[in-house]
Amino acid sequence: MREIAVLDPACCVVGEAPLGKRDAETLADALRAVADPARLRLLSLISAEGEVCQCDLTRPLGLSQPTISHHLRVLVDAGLLEREQRGRWAFYRVQRQRLEPLSRALAPVR
Amino acid sequence: MREIAVLDPACCVVGEAPLGKRDAETLADALRAVADPARLRLLSLISAEGEVCQCDLTRPLGLSQPTISHHLRVLVDAGLLEREQRGRWAFYRVQRQRLEPLSRALAPVR
Repeated sequence: MREIAVLDPACCVVGEAPLGKRDAETLADALRAVADPARLRLLSLISAEGEVCQCDLTRPLGLSQPTISHHLRVLVDAGLLEREQRGRWAFYRVQRQRLEPLSRALAPVR
Repeated sequence: MREIAVLDPACCVVGEAPLGKRDAETLADALRAVADPARLRLLSLISAEGEVCQCDLTRPLGLSQPTISHHLRVLVDAGLLEREQRGRWAFYRVQRQRLEPLSRALAPVR
C-alpha cells in the first residue's frame, strides 16, 4: 500500500462541485483508511476512552496483537490517531480534527 | 465482492460509543463504496448536475464505458445512486439522504 496523504481540512465537499482527480485521490485514500471494520472499532473505542494503551486493545476486538498493530499504523499514517510511546507501551488518542474533513466531504449540500 | 448492505441512517457515530462488530462491518461496507477516486468523482459530477445520462460520464472521467458501468453499479448497490432506464440510456441521481449517515458516522462528537 502506498503512503496515505493526510487529508487537507479544506479539501473538498463531494456534493458541491465536480471533484478534480487529485482531490478525489486524496479523499479516497483518507476514506480507505477508515473503511475497515477493525479500524472503525479501534477509532470508536479509543475515542470513547479518550486515550488507550495498545495493551488494552486486543481483548475488546478479539484480534491478534500484530493485526491490531497493523490497523493502528494505518490510522496513525492517515493522521487519525496520535501515538505516544511511554516505556514499553504505546498510547493512542483520536485526532478528531482529522475526522472532521472526512465527515464534511460527505455532508449533503443544502 | 459480497453484496453491500445499504447503511441504516440511524447506524452509528464512530466517536460516540464503541462500535459493535455488526455496525462496524455495515459502516465499513458503505465507506468502501465511496472510498475510490472514480466513484467520488462520479458522485460529485452527478450531484453537481442533478441528473446525468450514463452517456455523458465517460468523457469527463477519461475512463472506459465498462469501468464507469462497474463503478456506477457499486454506487447503485450501496444505495448512493438512483438509476432510471429511459430507452437506450440510463440516468443517475445522487441519493443525498444516503450520504448523510456516512457523514454523520464520521462527525466529531461535541
